[in-house]
Amino acid sequence: MALRRVLGLGGTLGRRSYCSKQPLPPDFVEALRAVVGGPNVSTATAVREQHGHDESMHDCAPPDAVVWPQAVEQVQELAALCHRCRVPMVPFGTGTGLEGGVNAVQGGICFNLSRMDAITELSLEDFSVMVEPGVTRKALNNYLRGTGLWFPVDPGADASLCGMAATGASGTNAVRYGTMRPNVLNLRVVLPDGRLLHTAGPGRQARWALWWRRAGRGNRWVPASTHSPSSCRKRAAGYDLTSLFVGSEGTLGFLTQATLRLHPMPEAVAVTTATFPSVRAAVACTVQVLQAAVPVARIEFLDEVMVDACSRFSKVELRAAATLLLELHGSRHGLLEQQQQAEEIVQLNGGSSLAWAMEPEEREQLWAMRHNAWYAALALRPGCQGYSTDVCVPISRLPDVVVETKQDLQDSGITGPMVGHVGDGNFHCIIVFNTQDPAEAHRVHAFTERLGRRALAAGGTCTGEHGVGLGKRALLREELGQEGLDTLRSIKAALDPLNLMNPGKVL
Amino acid sequence: MALRRVLGLGGTLGRRSYCSKQPLPPDFVEALRAVVGGPNVSTATAVREQHGHDESMHDCAPPDAVVWPQAVEQVQELAALCHRCRVPMVPFGTGTGLEGGVNAVQGGICFNLSRMDAITELSLEDFSVMVEPGVTRKALNNYLRGTGLWFPVDPGADASLCGMAATGASGTNAVRYGTMRPNVLNLRVVLPDGRLLHTAGPGRQARWALWWRRAGRGNRWVPASTHSPSSCRKRAAGYDLTSLFVGSEGTLGFLTQATLRLHPMPEAVAVTTATFPSVRAAVACTVQVLQAAVPVARIEFLDEVMVDACSRFSKVELRAAATLLLELHGSRHGLLEQQQQAEEIVQLNGGSSLAWAMEPEEREQLWAMRHNAWYAALALRPGCQGYSTDVCVPISRLPDVVVETKQDLQDSGITGPMVGHVGDGNFHCIIVFNTQDPAEAHRVHAFTERLGRRALAAGGTCTGEHGVGLGKRALLREELGQEGLDTLRSIKAALDPLNLMNPGKVL
Repeated sequence: MALRRVLGLGGTLGRRSYCSKQPLPPDFVEALRAVVGGPNVSTATAVREQHGHDESMHDCAPPDAVVWPQAVEQVQELAALCHRCRVPMVPFGTGTGLEGGVNAVQGGICFNLSRMDAITELSLEDFSVMVEPGVTRKALNNYLRGTGLWFPVDPGADASLCGMAATGASGTNAVRYGTMRPNVLNLRVVLPDGRLLHTAGPGRQARWALWWRRAGRGNRWVPASTHSPSSCRKRAAGYDLTSLFVGSEGTLGFLTQATLRLHPMPEAVAVTTATFPSVRAAVACTVQVLQAAVPVARIEFLDEVMVDACSRFSKVELRAAATLLLELHGSRHGLLEQQQQAEEIVQLNGGSSLAWAMEPEEREQLWAMRHNAWYAALALRPGCQGYSTDVCVPISRLPDVVVETKQDLQDSGITGPMVGHVGDGNFHCIIVFNTQDPAEAHRVHAFTERLGRRALAAGGTCTGEHGVGLGKRALLREELGQEGLDTLRSIKAALDPLNLMNPGKVL
Repeated sequence: MALRRVLGLGGTLGRRSYCSKQPLPPDFVEALRAVVGGPNVSTATAVREQHGHDESMHDCAPPDAVVWPQAVEQVQELAALCHRCRVPMVPFGTGTGLEGGVNAVQGGICFNLSRMDAITELSLEDFSVMVEPGVTRKALNNYLRGTGLWFPVDPGADASLCGMAATGASGTNAVRYGTMRPNVLNLRVVLPDGRLLHTAGPGRQARWALWWRRAGRGNRWVPASTHSPSSCRKRAAGYDLTSLFVGSEGTLGFLTQATLRLHPMPEAVAVTTATFPSVRAAVACTVQVLQAAVPVARIEFLDEVMVDACSRFSKVELRAAATLLLELHGSRHGLLEQQQQAEEIVQLNGGSSLAWAMEPEEREQLWAMRHNAWYAALALRPGCQGYSTDVCVPISRLPDVVVETKQDLQDSGITGPMVGHVGDGNFHCIIVFNTQDPAEAHRVHAFTERLGRRALAAGGTCTGEHGVGLGKRALLREELGQEGLDTLRSIKAALDPLNLMNPGKVL
């Protein structure tokens, strides 16, 4: 395997050997300890193995050591140390990735960033907050309780927000609130040589003027300059570095802080399930809901196999049919109109919907069923393991792609119930198979490759939200073409010329 | 002036002399003619001068020749030719930029792309369309009439959509529909050496399967594979090249086609103006409208000087006070509730609003006033010229920054009425001054620099939507810091190592 490094755009391609796994330099672990203190470095086998994989099925590839920096300066110092000694670096958040993003395929040092967990600079007026890599999305939303604001991106797992930024995650709310990309305003990045980059510029203390704000019971004026200003909502100042680092999967630097865009909590929320005579009808309904500009917050598809698995697992009674889970956000009054519109469109497509769940407990029950889809699928074949595909296609192609994929699953004899963020054209087959059976593993591999190619042929992508990681590098080449891949490689070579940041991933 | 090219991230900075303006190689113009045909190349002084400036006040810098390619293959051939001969290239759309983006400060060839004006691949189901650089936003919206879809990004000028992508433009609708960035799904880019890049992968013909769809009166099945598939709505496949090229201001390549995200037309639209006792009250009202999750489509601020100028210019009667222009989009029914909410918040902040304009003509009249703000400002001092500042700050800082800026204008004796996309924290002072008066020009220059620094100190940016171009390079350095600038330079050096694409801009 060779990383081709583009030395010039004139077409002169040089080759540099992909640095193979090498032992750590002598005394390197001691040098790590000198930076972060003894208890924050581990070379224990169990710890290394625990950090050598995520939730995907890629073989565990343990790092040579794990470090737990407590502050950004320590991350910088550690990175500079690794850089000087040419030691690979792998960022680690919660380990909930699905494409082997944390597997240390070339060894090196795993940076577990979970102990940097400050939440700072919450601004209710600017709808923004800064979080360090140890802060998960649930922790942030707990922190925000009572403020009237929330962070809506929800990939299912309680992932680290910086990890979600690194993967370009999205999930069920993306159809209304967008993926991580538009919701990250600034990133504090430690570059591979230890330098500190703020993708939208460094936070500035208010040198120019002292800001005052009213606060407290007496509503008195107090100086507000104690907190550094948050980021502005839009910029046209130079290349968009924030978007470049979102989705870079740890290959360009460490995301050590993210400034996130928050959203006002909706006044009222309503959830329903609607069942349809066919997959095609469920998807057609989705397209019409979007075209009618119903501001749907979530619109999730489950095929009849998934619904059946979920109702058995979560002990709810649902008809085994192509199903949509719809969530609407709005004012109490406005919601009524949205509900009527949605119901009409459901009926137009031959579907029938249940009563709307308005109370938090009822809604929670429905979403718990959806969030447990993974475990419900696994329960279909006890003792087997799961793998989730992640293609995303233009919505107009979704019915065909879904129908063909279901046929393919059946022809291949593979168990793979489907769930999908159908408003974005993104769906997953949760494949449950016996990894010990080489013939079955081979069939699964061939199926996922066909599915990826089917999505590409439909103008889609091999990964809507899980990232490329280890497993989709070949498909990425097909998706972007040679020029696209060469451009990615030029950028990687420009920002990480020694190929030390999470080597072996994406490219 | 020297472009420092980062040769490595270890800190070794090499210097390469900034290629100075040189005459074209002999027979070069003949070689251009051989590619695009004689009538599509011009070296006439009048034509070159017309292409040597945009609407800003930067000195005209004419290119050595202007070419009008008719197809992407010609752009590729021309770029390869310029690349071989080391001749600078400058992309040109409608010339409506505001920061000197098209000025050929190092000479070279201006590529006028206006004759490539195809609109293709409109997909009503995928909410997407592909446009070539000659298509302006008004032309696209005319084309979309009757489809129920529209493209909302509106910077005021009838700019080329690819030019808007190149600048990272936004405008009045951004608070609801976003800037160009989230609305561009894919870009077909001609790289500086002539290679063709599709930032989200090349469009693929449906090789894998033949798609069928129902169409026509008889609702019969017809093959749908005649059009190539559009782009999907989200991707996590590799670095986000689309976002990298949006806002690159022609310094990384030619945007020769953009796949845009369309939006459903709102069922109903309502517009009103509200006047406030102070700037602070108007801005506080804006923040509360956003916090209350009123899905406002436009919320524009005009200070009392601007309102006065506008009412005189457009002959409408408006009180000279801090004013908000509010536009709401929604269903007929839902709009009523939004209107009530908005009115309540206006009153809470001591403002008073007019009756809502619901009919297209009435609404058009109010927006014509806003869109004519530039000319209304110029009419304040006949014979003088205009320059628009473009800072953007976190909304919480907006009242202070606006109040200080107004004071600064007054202290400096500068005429500069204010308009602002206040929902995004972005505002413009339309400075009207006598360019022939060196003392006044100096005061204006000093003021704009102070304003830029004031925005930076507040955590903002020197440019919210006009771009860096020629005039804001110094402020960009302050905004991004050394590491930020070095990172931009590494990317520029990786993708355009000979510095031939629009040299002298941004960096």
